[in-house]
Amino acid sequence: MISVKEETIVALATPSGTGAIALIRLSGPDAITIINSVFKGKNLEEQESHTIHFGTIRDGQNIVDEVLVSLFIAPKSYTKENVVEISCHGSKYIIESIIKLLIRKGARAAKPGEFTLRAFLNGGLDLAQAEAVADLISSQSQASHQLAMQQMRGGFSNELKQLREQLIHFASMIELELDFSEEDVEFANRDQLKSLVMAIFKVINKLVQSFELGNVIKNGVPVVIAGKPNVGKSTLLNVLLNEDRAIVSEIAGTTRDTIEDEINIRGINFRFIDTAGIRETQDIVEAKGVERTFEKIKSSAIVLYLFDANETSGVEFEKIITDLKAVTDERNGHLILVCNKVDLGGIEALKAKFEAYPAMLFISAKERLNIEDLEDALLEAVNFRSLNSEEVIISSLRHHDALLKTSAALERVLYGIDNPVTSDFLALDIKQALYYLGEITGQVTTDDLLDNIFSKFCIGK
Amino acid sequence: MISVKEETIVALATPSGTGAIALIRLSGPDAITIINSVFKGKNLEEQESHTIHFGTIRDGQNIVDEVLVSLFIAPKSYTKENVVEISCHGSKYIIESIIKLLIRKGARAAKPGEFTLRAFLNGGLDLAQAEAVADLISSQSQASHQLAMQQMRGGFSNELKQLREQLIHFASMIELELDFSEEDVEFANRDQLKSLVMAIFKVINKLVQSFELGNVIKNGVPVVIAGKPNVGKSTLLNVLLNEDRAIVSEIAGTTRDTIEDEINIRGINFRFIDTAGIRETQDIVEAKGVERTFEKIKSSAIVLYLFDANETSGVEFEKIITDLKAVTDERNGHLILVCNKVDLGGIEALKAKFEAYPAMLFISAKERLNIEDLEDALLEAVNFRSLNSEEVIISSLRHHDALLKTSAALERVLYGIDNPVTSDFLALDIKQALYYLGEITGQVTTDDLLDNIFSKFCIGK
Repeated sequence: MISVKEETIVALATPSGTGAIALIRLSGPDAITIINSVFKGKNLEEQESHTIHFGTIRDGQNIVDEVLVSLFIAPKSYTKENVVEISCHGSKYIIESIIKLLIRKGARAAKPGEFTLRAFLNGGLDLAQAEAVADLISSQSQASHQLAMQQMRGGFSNELKQLREQLIHFASMIELELDFSEEDVEFANRDQLKSLVMAIFKVINKLVQSFELGNVIKNGVPVVIAGKPNVGKSTLLNVLLNEDRAIVSEIAGTTRDTIEDEINIRGINFRFIDTAGIRETQDIVEAKGVERTFEKIKSSAIVLYLFDANETSGVEFEKIITDLKAVTDERNGHLILVCNKVDLGGIEALKAKFEAYPAMLFISAKERLNIEDLEDALLEAVNFRSLNSEEVIISSLRHHDALLKTSAALERVLYGIDNPVTSDFLALDIKQALYYLGEITGQVTTDDLLDNIFSKFCIGK
Repeated sequence: MISVKEETIVALATPSGTGAIALIRLSGPDAITIINSVFKGKNLEEQESHTIHFGTIRDGQNIVDEVLVSLFIAPKSYTKENVVEISCHGSKYIIESIIKLLIRKGARAAKPGEFTLRAFLNGGLDLAQAEAVADLISSQSQASHQLAMQQMRGGFSNELKQLREQLIHFASMIELELDFSEEDVEFANRDQLKSLVMAIFKVINKLVQSFELGNVIKNGVPVVIAGKPNVGKSTLLNVLLNEDRAIVSEIAGTTRDTIEDEINIRGINFRFIDTAGIRETQDIVEAKGVERTFEKIKSSAIVLYLFDANETSGVEFEKIITDLKAVTDERNGHLILVCNKVDLGGIEALKAKFEAYPAMLFISAKERLNIEDLEDALLEAVNFRSLNSEEVIISSLRHHDALLKTSAALERVLYGIDNPVTSDFLALDIKQALYYLGEITGQVTTDDLLDNIFSKFCIGK
């Protein structure tokens, strides 16, 4: 394994902030020499890979900390280089002191994502896998976690690599035709090529289509709750939120950052957009509030229209529903009609009253009645079946774009096969398809692309 | 080594929040069995201590994460029990999932400080050392770090333990006298006892006195900057702050939480009290502001009075200085007079003008002129010499109180030696001294005391 970079890098790998333990990570050819020069304990250069050693870090005579040092000797490490992890006390002063000391001894502060970049450059991960590492770290729900894990473990990459290899085979055949172009031979069987391209086309389009779900899983589903004042919007939010929180709050020290209105329903995150504002102004779907609500609706995937079971429905109600439906239909969105406060009246009577709306839900937020039906409706709206761990789903806009470009190039290839197009044009289109496919897993990269991807990582990863 | 607790505990040991890596820690007799039941990779029950193993954590068929597992087999661990550290991706979802899974497999969520409590109960650390672990983690300056490190490594405890042992010797002699009380013998030589108690007394009083400095080092020095509006208070603060920050900001990812007005000067933290308020109201030392300033001054160790070199000094100036001096003298505080904006006039002329105040400093915050003199003056005010690493300094209020109680008991012993007091009273006073001394290092503990100490730790330590 060739070390791509000669420099040894260092960074804090655990979150900044105070904790019991912090982990500082070194990677590079001199990682072990550098730590050994400040470590008092065993001679770390004589130890085996995957062993842990207790001792002190010293800056001259000063003891900086008592630490545990873990050794990973190249290529048996994440970056495929020598890696050292220093487990020290989680004091900012100590963390700073150790990192400064290691920099003085020859290490360099790592850039964001530089450890994973090295893992990629040294062949430990392909590009889609490397991107999945960042997704994995930021995943907040079961579904997004599963997606990232599947991508990191290569399920996604393998499928693309197989397709690409088959295509490369044909590309080389057609290149061969170009060499013998004066003899008018066909090394690449056009029928076979066509059926391969059709097959790839189908797989790629399926992946492209999976992006809608993947994106929802990764970024959460934007939902607007609309309704007149006092129909119970905040009560409903709190009920949904509490059922989510109850699962989370068991374990002290791991509570999530408060994202008040992001609610996890059976593994999918729903983002209730600007509902704080809605709660505050309380004038939504009133005359002057309608316009503002409709703007919010335009940026949402689901509109949940909540109304009071006890209000007299009439012309006004039907008008609102018609207006909302027009907006959501236009954007391929979903409208969920929810009749709240059914605890105050008989559900059967209400069902009869609203028989024109068979999908309408009858709940009581206050009494937690039929909340599960509402959750079902939300999940159904995003077309979320339990994730099958075999199913490949893409969630990255970059992959989506590259797949679309691949798809367009393949369409040109198909056109070229069926029409009198010369081999050189065909070869060009196949090469383009290969290029875009290769960008996804990183067989094709540019510095800009890598910068763009890894600069979004956190430092220390 | 006897395991004091039979339960295996689990907690996140790194700060919550998103980072590249998180560390989850298990401790207890079943730590290795529990991790092995969810780990796919090598059989962890067959591995040696201080080794690291790559594999996946699985919840049934679901892969929760790819992890590194570090093994520490009892008694070769921090807690002296079996300890397992799981290094996983720093996603909150993953952290929660793993901890929940381990709890399902038989672990229990650890209480704050429970790992260190077990280290203490199992004889890995004495109580003063255990307390130093928390101090070490929260130390934010070189001096407080050095203090905590010295205490954690036992410098402090050793001194006390030696004193206590000598005293125990005499206590047992006097106990012996009680057994033979009818025979009126003296096993404990009163002259030797007196000179020992005098010696201990001296050491303890030195420790008690060191608390003033230790407390300042640990908690920072409260400083008030007083002065009329526009004399340059915020400029001065920013200059002091920037010189501190410049050192810190080199290393991305380790920047401190913004504590705007806590400034580290050569290893000592100075807390500029409520100066945000001063900056905001801008009316300090004006007629109506004087009272409020003086209240703030009462809670500070140092008052820094800043004035504009170009203002006409006169009766008003002298009155303010006299008032400030009265308040600071009363509280044993320090008053530092600082003449700012000297870049606009000649320093020599100013020195002549203010020759009645020989300690006055002449600076220009804007031009960073003589800022170092001001830093010297601040350090001198807290009587901070470079810390000698041999010198024992206490910084815990609990230790201070226990030492004061020891001192009082020893005074009674001295009185008893010089006066006709019976051996049983003498024995009682010596026992009290021993009790309070023992409380410091933990030879004497109560559940309340331990609860009180360890509940202040973070979870995972």
